[in-house]
Amino acid sequence: MIIVQTIEALQEAKKALSGSIGFVPTMGALHKGHLSLIQQAKNENDHLIVSIFVNPTQFLEGEDLDAYPRKEEADIKICKLAGVDILFMPTIDAMYEKDELSIGAPAIRGYILEGEKRPGHFDGMLQVVMKLLNLSGATNAYFGKKDAQQLALITQMVKNYFMDVNIIPCDIVRDENGLALSSRNVYLQGDEKTRALSLARSLKRATKMVMAGELNVEVIKKEMLIVLEETDQVEYVAIVDRAFNELDTVEIGNTIILVAAWVGKPRLIDNLWI
Amino acid sequence: MIIVQTIEALQEAKKALSGSIGFVPTMGALHKGHLSLIQQAKNENDHLIVSIFVNPTQFLEGEDLDAYPRKEEADIKICKLAGVDILFMPTIDAMYEKDELSIGAPAIRGYILEGEKRPGHFDGMLQVVMKLLNLSGATNAYFGKKDAQQLALITQMVKNYFMDVNIIPCDIVRDENGLALSSRNVYLQGDEKTRALSLARSLKRATKMVMAGELNVEVIKKEMLIVLEETDQVEYVAIVDRAFNELDTVEIGNTIILVAAWVGKPRLIDNLWI
Repeated sequence: MIIVQTIEALQEAKKALSGSIGFVPTMGALHKGHLSLIQQAKNENDHLIVSIFVNPTQFLEGEDLDAYPRKEEADIKICKLAGVDILFMPTIDAMYEKDELSIGAPAIRGYILEGEKRPGHFDGMLQVVMKLLNLSGATNAYFGKKDAQQLALITQMVKNYFMDVNIIPCDIVRDENGLALSSRNVYLQGDEKTRALSLARSLKRATKMVMAGELNVEVIKKEMLIVLEETDQVEYVAIVDRAFNELDTVEIGNTIILVAAWVGKPRLIDNLWI
Repeated sequence: MIIVQTIEALQEAKKALSGSIGFVPTMGALHKGHLSLIQQAKNENDHLIVSIFVNPTQFLEGEDLDAYPRKEEADIKICKLAGVDILFMPTIDAMYEKDELSIGAPAIRGYILEGEKRPGHFDGMLQVVMKLLNLSGATNAYFGKKDAQQLALITQMVKNYFMDVNIIPCDIVRDENGLALSSRNVYLQGDEKTRALSLARSLKRATKMVMAGELNVEVIKKEMLIVLEETDQVEYVAIVDRAFNELDTVEIGNTIILVAAWVGKPRLIDNLWI
């Protein structure tokens, strides 16, 4: 595995590659969720590039940019063991210059749900993902369904700007109790670990209702909110189609149910595609 | 020459190409300025793609989008004679969807000079150029120095987003009297044609002063404004470095002198690189 920190070193290292390139962009603090993306990318491509970059432009004022978990040494070991060819760990200066061009998320789909709670977050996320996709020269780029709205917006970006890369959605990885893996789970303490499970439980409850024939979105949401009383504060429960348009009635095969809630220090998100 | 109007037809037509692709994006109403870009692109590449698209997002409210000169039949003939391989003439619907991602020009360099007079113009211009560069798969893309700030911002876009294309700046083409060619010159009537020459004359005057050793920007600008009294209204006279930072003293080899002024109906621009 080659570790590169500059654009020039990455371009140089890429010259040795021929065939398809799988790419997994991350912010580090790698867990089994990332590893499953990395393994899928490894299986489906001739070469594998992973990036680790905690992108400042997607954190809002007052968010946890400085406190965001960093585990450089462990991350490097994980990538090496997973058969990564190139690990790209750029500095902020390598990625950004002063007085940059910006990307604006779509006025509607970029500013509902996560975008409403974190206004501007998706602008910065899309900005860095466009940079990284272009830099990697990826044939296939892998993103987790856990960040469902992020995934939808990246898919739209590739479509809107006619970018020559396939975006591959990957299933959410959960721990043995059903908690969706997240780098921010390390913040959970004591009974918060149990209470955090209510997010996944609320989604299971919704699935059961749908399976039983209940398709009314308001009815399902109300039930979910009861399950979510165990959290400290629910930010949203939403039921949308795969393009993030609001639904009144569940459309099986085209629906995402999403939840965001605070449990102790971290703000957690989870979702389910049905 | 293949004429294509949809994304799918363009992608299909591109499959037949191997080797380098030269690309010249235009808004049509082709004149000798465009032709010189097209010929250079033809000479320097294995294949040649030209696009004609009057991009709505780069026109401001009240600008001449509807009145912008359109000469489809003549344009097609010019491209055919020039040896264009693929002429891409998309509809607006092929290029844009509702609730799109946007591009924001740099906060400083995108909002001075042309960007100050036409706020938001560069956002729309960069948006369509990014789309077109990605769509064309260009090895080399050709832009005229006449739109010097546009050229600088496109160069910055390619750098900021690590796009895999060379931006080739091409010299301004002038008529026999020295008037920089522009699709908007067709609006000039009667004595306006003579008065429009004062833009080029002011630049010549500046060059002579520099050749004579005068490097003080304020002194040069003052002289230029005297020459420009023949126009109806001067919008700006600017002397900047190649990255569009303001200068106090001309730096030979790194300076652009720019002028924008109204003469009759059209707003004209011109510049000189020294």
